[in-house]
Amino acid sequence: MAFFNKRYHPAGTSPGTLTKTPAPGAESYRLRLYDYDSDQLKIFDDTTAKACTPYLESKTVSWVHVEGRPSERTLRELGEAFHVHSLALEDILNTGQRPKFEQFPDQLFIVMTLPVMAEDRIESHQVSLLLGTNYLISFCETDFSPFEPIIKRLQAGAGRIRSAGADYLLYCLLDLLVDRAFPVLEAFGFKLETLEDQILEAGDQDTLAEIHLLRREMILLRRTLWPQREVINAMLRGDCPWIRETTNLYLRDCYDHTIQVMDLLETYRDMASSMLEIYLSSVSNRMNDVMRVLTVIATIFIPLTFIVGVYGMNFDRNAGPWSMPELGEPLGYLMVWLAMLVIAVGMVMFFRRRKWF
Amino acid sequence: MAFFNKRYHPAGTSPGTLTKTPAPGAESYRLRLYDYDSDQLKIFDDTTAKACTPYLESKTVSWVHVEGRPSERTLRELGEAFHVHSLALEDILNTGQRPKFEQFPDQLFIVMTLPVMAEDRIESHQVSLLLGTNYLISFCETDFSPFEPIIKRLQAGAGRIRSAGADYLLYCLLDLLVDRAFPVLEAFGFKLETLEDQILEAGDQDTLAEIHLLRREMILLRRTLWPQREVINAMLRGDCPWIRETTNLYLRDCYDHTIQVMDLLETYRDMASSMLEIYLSSVSNRMNDVMRVLTVIATIFIPLTFIVGVYGMNFDRNAGPWSMPELGEPLGYLMVWLAMLVIAVGMVMFFRRRKWF
Amino acid sequence: MAFFNKRYHPAGTSPGTLTKTPAPGAESYRLRLYDYDSDQLKIFDDTTAKACTPYLESKTVSWVHVEGRPSERTLRELGEAFHVHSLALEDILNTGQRPKFEQFPDQLFIVMTLPVMAEDRIESHQVSLLLGTNYLISFCETDFSPFEPIIKRLQAGAGRIRSAGADYLLYCLLDLLVDRAFPVLEAFGFKLETLEDQILEAGDQDTLAEIHLLRREMILLRRTLWPQREVINAMLRGDCPWIRETTNLYLRDCYDHTIQVMDLLETYRDMASSMLEIYLSSVSNRMNDVMRVLTVIATIFIPLTFIVGVYGMNFDRNAGPWSMPELGEPLGYLMVWLAMLVIAVGMVMFFRRRKWF
Amino acid sequence: MAFFNKRYHPAGTSPGTLTKTPAPGAESYRLRLYDYDSDQLKIFDDTTAKACTPYLESKTVSWVHVEGRPSERTLRELGEAFHVHSLALEDILNTGQRPKFEQFPDQLFIVMTLPVMAEDRIESHQVSLLLGTNYLISFCETDFSPFEPIIKRLQAGAGRIRSAGADYLLYCLLDLLVDRAFPVLEAFGFKLETLEDQILEAGDQDTLAEIHLLRREMILLRRTLWPQREVINAMLRGDCPWIRETTNLYLRDCYDHTIQVMDLLETYRDMASSMLEIYLSSVSNRMNDVMRVLTVIATIFIPLTFIVGVYGMNFDRNAGPWSMPELGEPLGYLMVWLAMLVIAVGMVMFFRRRKWF
Amino acid sequence: MAFFNKRYHPAGTSPGTLTKTPAPGAESYRLRLYDYDSDQLKIFDDTTAKACTPYLESKTVSWVHVEGRPSERTLRELGEAFHVHSLALEDILNTGQRPKFEQFPDQLFIVMTLPVMAEDRIESHQVSLLLGTNYLISFCETDFSPFEPIIKRLQAGAGRIRSAGADYLLYCLLDLLVDRAFPVLEAFGFKLETLEDQILEAGDQDTLAEIHLLRREMILLRRTLWPQREVINAMLRGDCPWIRETTNLYLRDCYDHTIQVMDLLETYRDMASSMLEIYLSSVSNRMNDVMRVLTVIATIFIPLTFIVGVYGMNFDRNAGPWSMPELGEPLGYLMVWLAMLVIAVGMVMFFRRRKWF
Repeated sequence: MAFFNKRYHPAGTSPGTLTKTPAPGAESYRLRLYDYDSDQLKIFDDTTAKACTPYLESKTVSWVHVEGRPSERTLRELGEAFHVHSLALEDILNTGQRPKFEQFPDQLFIVMTLPVMAEDRIESHQVSLLLGTNYLISFCETDFSPFEPIIKRLQAGAGRIRSAGADYLLYCLLDLLVDRAFPVLEAFGFKLETLEDQILEAGDQDTLAEIHLLRREMILLRRTLWPQREVINAMLRGDCPWIRETTNLYLRDCYDHTIQVMDLLETYRDMASSMLEIYLSSVSNRMNDVMRVLTVIATIFIPLTFIVGVYGMNFDRNAGPWSMPELGEPLGYLMVWLAMLVIAVGMVMFFRRRKWF
Repeated sequence: MAFFNKRYHPAGTSPGTLTKTPAPGAESYRLRLYDYDSDQLKIFDDTTAKACTPYLESKTVSWVHVEGRPSERTLRELGEAFHVHSLALEDILNTGQRPKFEQFPDQLFIVMTLPVMAEDRIESHQVSLLLGTNYLISFCETDFSPFEPIIKRLQAGAGRIRSAGADYLLYCLLDLLVDRAFPVLEAFGFKLETLEDQILEAGDQDTLAEIHLLRREMILLRRTLWPQREVINAMLRGDCPWIRETTNLYLRDCYDHTIQVMDLLETYRDMASSMLEIYLSSVSNRMNDVMRVLTVIATIFIPLTFIVGVYGMNFDRNAGPWSMPELGEPLGYLMVWLAMLVIAVGMVMFFRRRKWF
Repeated sequence: MAFFNKRYHPAGTSPGTLTKTPAPGAESYRLRLYDYDSDQLKIFDDTTAKACTPYLESKTVSWVHVEGRPSERTLRELGEAFHVHSLALEDILNTGQRPKFEQFPDQLFIVMTLPVMAEDRIESHQVSLLLGTNYLISFCETDFSPFEPIIKRLQAGAGRIRSAGADYLLYCLLDLLVDRAFPVLEAFGFKLETLEDQILEAGDQDTLAEIHLLRREMILLRRTLWPQREVINAMLRGDCPWIRETTNLYLRDCYDHTIQVMDLLETYRDMASSMLEIYLSSVSNRMNDVMRVLTVIATIFIPLTFIVGVYGMNFDRNAGPWSMPELGEPLGYLMVWLAMLVIAVGMVMFFRRRKWF
Repeated sequence: MAFFNKRYHPAGTSPGTLTKTPAPGAESYRLRLYDYDSDQLKIFDDTTAKACTPYLESKTVSWVHVEGRPSERTLRELGEAFHVHSLALEDILNTGQRPKFEQFPDQLFIVMTLPVMAEDRIESHQVSLLLGTNYLISFCETDFSPFEPIIKRLQAGAGRIRSAGADYLLYCLLDLLVDRAFPVLEAFGFKLETLEDQILEAGDQDTLAEIHLLRREMILLRRTLWPQREVINAMLRGDCPWIRETTNLYLRDCYDHTIQVMDLLETYRDMASSMLEIYLSSVSNRMNDVMRVLTVIATIFIPLTFIVGVYGMNFDRNAGPWSMPELGEPLGYLMVWLAMLVIAVGMVMFFRRRKWF
Repeated sequence: MAFFNKRYHPAGTSPGTLTKTPAPGAESYRLRLYDYDSDQLKIFDDTTAKACTPYLESKTVSWVHVEGRPSERTLRELGEAFHVHSLALEDILNTGQRPKFEQFPDQLFIVMTLPVMAEDRIESHQVSLLLGTNYLISFCETDFSPFEPIIKRLQAGAGRIRSAGADYLLYCLLDLLVDRAFPVLEAFGFKLETLEDQILEAGDQDTLAEIHLLRREMILLRRTLWPQREVINAMLRGDCPWIRETTNLYLRDCYDHTIQVMDLLETYRDMASSMLEIYLSSVSNRMNDVMRVLTVIATIFIPLTFIVGVYGMNFDRNAGPWSMPELGEPLGYLMVWLAMLVIAVGMVMFFRRRKWF
């Protein structure tokens, strides 16, 4: 996830402007319509905005899903066909929005994010939702696949999904988007546990990079997930005429999930911070152990080297009785070895008693 | 406690779905019914959901306790027999829920956790509670033993427990679950005090691991205990028809306990953070002491070793009067020793005055 | 102060249970009654609960003070005589409660703590207060002495204390308990200032232990003092029939004191954290200074020692013209000294210019 | 951005005082008037306050823009002509105000900041806005250019800008000011990503300086941006008679932008803190690696140097059979080399097995 | 500023007690009365409480200013003359109060602090204010000088000060007290910028002491300034009969200033924390650079010293063909030099390539 992923107009652009953005792979979009009630389900694939309009006005529930990135011209047409406010259209076009909830006179406009695990990194795509009297319009940059489970449930016709209204369908999509965070968090939890084992024993520079990556992803994930909680809370508090009482119970369950997601994320951040501290201490401890042993070795040999240096001096033994008489002693050499042994053992014992190694 | 312990359905699954989960040791459950009023207490062990139903509807208070992990099929049967909402059933099946409070049309649904000390680690089990007009249904993964004290009080018949309604029984269970945290916290407090003594004097890598473990457990414990406070607060604030005014006084006492638990936990976390900082400083201080002494020793011997090296040079004394005349001096050797002594003592005094060792 | 100082029943014990606790020095208690109005003051020392009852019901203000630890049996008798709710009795018996405020049908129940400076450590004792229509019952583990000032004021009869009701007496006790924190904080402030002087100049392991101790005491003190603020705030907000409007003004003053206490404590914690950081930096700076000087000394001598080593080699000067001809030079020895001097001075200058020592 | 950039009067100066401030380049200002309704747009450049007054009172929307720094005398004249409250005038003169919102009896007074990217540093200029019944007065220290887009939209006459009232014009200006933060944040995000790559591999003192600079700019930017959120929130909550219901929808969009800006800034700060920690650990890791290798090298050679020192001693081989007999052994020299080789290889293997280098 | 600067009575003292405190330089006070309306201004210097009383009751606005420390006896007299509540009197006597706001039946009682820059340290003096129907009584430990600007404005008679009531005078004093923080903060900002330049380049122990001092002053300043915000907010919210609607507008301006002061202080604290971290890293970086270079030098010479040591060994060349034959080689000496050169250059290149120095 990039640090800055918001698309924006230059400051001062008129609100609701849909600038001609040469988006990569622009004008590749596909519009699908699901029109259903408890008795039947009609699916229109690759259809057009105009063809959908009569269904939006019918009594049956209609779900229009726009996949891919429509060009600004197409988006304007869609906007006109579905009576979408220009501010909402601007937010749909300029992806990278913060999840938001806005009640327009005709429609409820909701922006959510869909986190997708791509290898080790997380990507997040914007999903825009518009709820009207008995229709739901959804926009998603990526392909259909994340919404397959809902479509399968529509086709199966089991449960409440076919008999309940567009607001229940909205709940189903929100619930799906929120629940997508769980496998991501499960993977994070697993990584944290793996890291935890490394940290106390053999953490190295890679461990550090790994901790950093995890924290980074969590900070960025938090940025997209935190506002989702507010969005669903706003729906629960608000008196939207399009959301029925019976759906609120399900939304509360969904709200609980957003809280649980944030709870996990906060716990993970605490854990990651704690682990970085422990990692640092652990590295420092290991380094200290190495340095202490090495320094002790050096320290033991330094006086010994001095002693052998002394008897390597070339003072003329013939100059007088005080000029290195030791060199002439028959047991001089052995005495020096003995002295050095005593010093070495003494120092080792001294260091040991002080627990220096 | 694992970092991620929630069981969840794939995103997009219909709400209230009870998937066939091949849980380890599945379909091992036991259902017990306690039916009582102030006059009598009937106990039915190893009974079935159907056999319980008439008691739930009777005027006496009924407590149905389900122990172990029922299979999804059994759970669905239980749900039908006791009129449990499918969202509640899903939460009962998918353990690892965040403690929650939900008011369904017919029942109050509460999820709590039961912390269990297993050796040094804490495990937490989900306890799900359903309160109806005059019955209480409880689900717990583990065996009966944690609830023994309540059962004994029911059998003894002393106090208010037999004469008060199902809401008082609910309070008793909540109070038990909340109070289970106290011995855990007492053990933590004891560990912290033990650590505290180690830290300033002889902390090593094990101490570090210990601090990490404590913080980890506290972070994870906090995650399960914090929402319990909200749950009980929600019960106090909410106008549940099933909770009588007289029980509120007891619930407030229970609420106080949850606050005290959080208070202790927060204090412990502050202490653990402080202790980690002190530990680091302390390790660093000890290391500095070692290094300083060793370096001072090395530094004293380095000039001495240089001096003896000088007189180990092989310049030809016959080459001229300036070619190492010291070597021929009768007292040269002694003078060198004297010079080295002066240097060594001087350096020791210098280092001492600067308080370097 | 211990990390965990709450006394508690095993989880699942019936609320209001007064277990037989073999407390050390149990059953040593003393009950004193002060019955007064603006005209007279009667003192009954070492009296019994039963003897007090008629005074509680009279129109004069009665203050029953229980000092020491009554046994559970005596406590139950006291509870019956004074109509104390069993939950309150349990909290009185199980000391180590968090300060709390509870409005029982007949009485206001307040738990506060009395911090006592014992040498360098702080101890905190629980004080339990029960306010009825015109009586006040107080329980304190320790002896009377902390409350002497109030008793003297009652005897002197000056000020409002004799003419105002039991609620004013309650305020007087609360005010005394809250104000006991000021000398403690003054002592802390003094210690912090002493530490501050040490830190920048000569902080050692003892300084570290001292900082840790201060932070520890402050974390634990905060735990007992913070809820006192809530207690007094709850009294100000609540509509207790036993607290008159005129007393509120005094309670607000007392509330201000609790805020000031917390303010000071928070400031101290910030200061202590800042001081620990500065201490660490300071120790690190001093260590760096030592290491730098020592390393520079070593580094200067290492090349010199190498040079003298070179001329200590035993190559046979007779082997050829390139075999250590320097050794035969008349000024060779002096030249080596000169070279070493130049190298040493050069390095010193180089290190100086780089500000390495 | 300077740490302290507020201009202020000496304490105790009468409120609303416009002191004669010898501002650099004072009395260089320019006043422009845009008077428009949906039919026409009149532009008066370099006009005077008096000439504007009749337009303010007309039914058409009037926008008076004051660019540059008028002297205090001119400002007083402007204030009188436009009925500006003296407190507002003081805030207009003393730039460096915190963004604020104040409802005067006749006008709505708003202070915002315009962040401008100047090379690597951010500068922020104060923009003061006064909204009356159907006029808007704006003050900006810098030249017109930031507001060009609005002027172009006025001239183009497209969109709502010409037909909507002065409140919509106010929204347009606020939206422009808020949106100016996005390119700044985009640049910050880019810098952070660049830094992130450096940190784990080759961070040096420059990286540190760069991190510090980024944090500094973000702290200062936060100070000016945070209150802007409050300002727009206050406008949404407040019942200003000059802001129409239809404009609120747009203001809410603008409010969302301020939240998104703060969100990004907070995320960046978290990232920068995390990056500093990782940088420190990374530097420390690299340093440890260097020190470990070097110390190991030194440690291996120290015993070897001791050994060769031993056989450099000058004990008289003729003194006795125990006086350095090794020196006379034919294979003595080779044996010493062998011994040193064994020691060196042994130590290398020992260090390797312990993973010390 | 001392850590603890509150004067307090022993716990349990009757509220409103004015103990005989042998304050240094006690009983040195001076009372001044300003009695004014829009027409006239009377000044009575060095007057007495009794002489002021009739003016307090007159319709003109009266400002009684007490400078210095009156003795407790005098204070009691003042209290009686001006009908001051005993709790207020206690707070006036016991300086070092937290800024507070209390509405007594007859008077509004406000405690503020006056920060004074004394050399490098900040001192804060308590200013107590009592607002009655049309009089204001102010107490300040220090001399008059801080209030000179107000007195001058009274004498000049310009602006609203003479025509507005006592509440406007109160606002003027509050505004003066709040604005006194700006020069202090400006000085802090300047110091921080100076420090910032030092930190990255040449920070030493003095820099550390400087950072500590700044943080200390800011923590203590924050303690006195933060409650001032609450005080003014309480005045804005409260329905004090003595504060007129028209004054509220000015108080809001003053409130904005308190917020700006806190904003600056918080930003400074963030900056100071960031600077301490950067300082530590910077010192550590510099130390690492030194150590690395020195260690590399040592490491290069250690093998060389070993080599020259080898050829300093005294093995008897006559013992056999393998006994140090190199010593007899004509080019042996040169070869050793060559070998050492190769080793040295090789190591330098190796270290360079690894970027170790």
